Amino acid sequence: MQAEVINTGSELLLGLVTNTHLGYLAGELAPCGITVARQVCVPDGPPIREALAAALERADVVFTTGGLGPTTDDITREAAAELLGLPLLPDEEILSGIRERFARRGLPMAERVARQAMVPVGAEVLPNPNGTAPGLYFPPTVLGSRRARHLFLLPGPPRELRPMTQDYVLPKLGTVLPASSRRERRIYRLTGIGESQVEERIGEKLEARGDLEVGYCARPSEVDFRLIGTPGLLDQIEPEIRAVLGEWIYSEGESLEAAIVRLMGDKHLTLATAESCTGGSLAGRITNVPGASEVFLAGYVTYANEAKENILGVPSELLAVHGAVSEPVAAAMAEGARRVSGAKFALSTTGIAGPSGGTENKPVGTVYLGLASAGYPTVVRRCYFPLDRVTFKHMATSAALDLLRRQVLELPLELGGGSSSPRLG
Amino acid sequence: MQAEVINTGSELLLGLVTNTHLGYLAGELAPCGITVARQVCVPDGPPIREALAAALERADVVFTTGGLGPTTDDITREAAAELLGLPLLPDEEILSGIRERFARRGLPMAERVARQAMVPVGAEVLPNPNGTAPGLYFPPTVLGSRRARHLFLLPGPPRELRPMTQDYVLPKLGTVLPASSRRERRIYRLTGIGESQVEERIGEKLEARGDLEVGYCARPSEVDFRLIGTPGLLDQIEPEIRAVLGEWIYSEGESLEAAIVRLMGDKHLTLATAESCTGGSLAGRITNVPGASEVFLAGYVTYANEAKENILGVPSELLAVHGAVSEPVAAAMAEGARRVSGAKFALSTTGIAGPSGGTENKPVGTVYLGLASAGYPTVVRRCYFPLDRVTFKHMATSAALDLLRRQVLELPLELGGGSSSPRLG
Repeated sequence: MQAEVINTGSELLLGLVTNTHLGYLAGELAPCGITVARQVCVPDGPPIREALAAALERADVVFTTGGLGPTTDDITREAAAELLGLPLLPDEEILSGIRERFARRGLPMAERVARQAMVPVGAEVLPNPNGTAPGLYFPPTVLGSRRARHLFLLPGPPRELRPMTQDYVLPKLGTVLPASSRRERRIYRLTGIGESQVEERIGEKLEARGDLEVGYCARPSEVDFRLIGTPGLLDQIEPEIRAVLGEWIYSEGESLEAAIVRLMGDKHLTLATAESCTGGSLAGRITNVPGASEVFLAGYVTYANEAKENILGVPSELLAVHGAVSEPVAAAMAEGARRVSGAKFALSTTGIAGPSGGTENKPVGTVYLGLASAGYPTVVRRCYFPLDRVTFKHMATSAALDLLRRQVLELPLELGGGSSSPRLG
Repeated sequence: MQAEVINTGSELLLGLVTNTHLGYLAGELAPCGITVARQVCVPDGPPIREALAAALERADVVFTTGGLGPTTDDITREAAAELLGLPLLPDEEILSGIRERFARRGLPMAERVARQAMVPVGAEVLPNPNGTAPGLYFPPTVLGSRRARHLFLLPGPPRELRPMTQDYVLPKLGTVLPASSRRERRIYRLTGIGESQVEERIGEKLEARGDLEVGYCARPSEVDFRLIGTPGLLDQIEPEIRAVLGEWIYSEGESLEAAIVRLMGDKHLTLATAESCTGGSLAGRITNVPGASEVFLAGYVTYANEAKENILGVPSELLAVHGAVSEPVAAAMAEGARRVSGAKFALSTTGIAGPSGGTENKPVGTVYLGLASAGYPTVVRRCYFPLDRVTFKHMATSAALDLLRRQVLELPLELGGGSSSPRLG
């Protein structure tokens, strides 16, 4: 089955926001047997109608994103209704939901917000717990003799579109699409190994079978290894994949930090962090996980040397002799954090995020990661991530989390056979 | 002038690669007076010809990306030549450049690679120092009576496309476009106010003038208010915009955290943070800014009550009587962080990120933000962001940063007249 995705939003065409909808939808639709054959981005306003008319004649399933909000340039709902000749009627349930949302937060509700509660007759409402604009599904009965059998209007913000896709769009497709088109998808999430190594070690071999769709998605410090096959096939090859890639696979869905919080929570282990160059983002990632408070006791962002001494008890002579960015200081920070917090494990980071501050021996991108653990010797790893500041912080915190994951699981600490810098590009 | 961007590449439609070309090109073209009016992504192969034919009738300038490589599915060059009725001739200079590239790396050159040296008669070659496939520019003389006056075929990999755009496309456009088409763009970034309030207060009025393009982009806790007009016009209306929206405008480009680091750096002010529910992400945002170490001294992530007492000196009776999520504890955390770190300002956060842990009086999403400042009384604000955990943390840290921004600038601390929750949807 072929799908077409229509993105609306001047902010996309103006280059203010990167369009992530296509990649997300393509990935989610593949297991339903749906291929995205075309994607188009049009400005807010009239061009949406023309794009919609063309898409409904060309594809089997059509998705729009954006243009469902309260402002005058949000006209996707009206364009679809007009094109299909469907009157719009107010939906009391949606309206009271929106009113309640505003009331709960003590905000005044502008009258135009009520537009979002208008529903074309014959369309089904897709609830939006994360925003005011609901989505809409148009079944074959209202699409008439057009080629398309299914039309979905989805909201623009990813944090509204994605849960709506999971909770309403995919289940709906599951009920309306033939069972023979069904596929299973599994995504192994790996860290400490590069995309091409995954391909070499097992991906090529699996691809050669001919009955599996094999894909890779590499992001800084991680690789998603994606398999799509007929129901049952993925269970059958799972043991082979685990045998080859096991130690690098941290989950089949959850984030690295969520996997660690779960692992440590199960074993009643506690954690503290002492961060210099990563400036709180290591603690920030851990505390993004619901339930992190069971595991995470305290974090110290000791940016200045005085803070490293006063808060963590790093000896001033260590700082003077080796410098703040050094193996002994990383070890002392981790040990200090463990001592001060009383946690079983403590991670530390000290490095040079840049853009300035590098030296010949310690260029921008250098980072030392320390791990102090009850019952194990303290370990320090030196890594090198010569990247922009935000990517550097992400890769440094990922490498620190992976060091902890390997310690907790008693895996080799060599970070994947010496590849401590999983991926540069 | 209106442009259309045609992206080819199955990897884009399969969701394996995020399309960053649109955002990049839109940003680079805006100052030339070129607006991207439409973008379409088609698979490698025949659909490119149809998309190209339609775009050349619809837009003034057309860009394609991808499909210039050596493999059989790379047919953009051939599709354009065929559509325009131009014979393809081998270009000896390109061919020898490609041969040299292969020789230099000791690689054999497959015969199909030579396809990349074929040039449609009348097109100009855009050199590609970063890859084998050169770009092509088709001037009005070969486009005939079609609407489009300029067609650019660009390579797919961003690291080839971007330098080619800088070094060849933009200079070419500078010579062929009339000066009268030039436009200016300004983006006001606001926090503490909602998109619909911006529209009501001034957006509608500016839109009604007819000589300005007005746009909005809302993200959790911020709104980008975007204006495009002829040179000089934006300077002319700037005072009116500042008079109406001034206190909510934190920058015309940089992030909220970058604006604060700059503001505080200019005034030689220092900052510490004491975070509970935001778990390090406040410090993380601040330290994402290059040069943050001039301003940021230390951060404390005091997740557990013991950490609040031991590290920040929050009195245990305050915690016992009022609970950790309370106005007095937020104040004591901020004051403790200021005292322990020696910073001029300290921000604190304590709240319930959820999904569990809420009570009737303090439901999930409640957060107290504290600000202790040298020379000002300590202030605490209660906010309510009943959203997913990551968005909650983002909105809470934004509101905390805005409180600090307002204090440093001596603006009213009421967070925009009581609207501390800028946007729901």
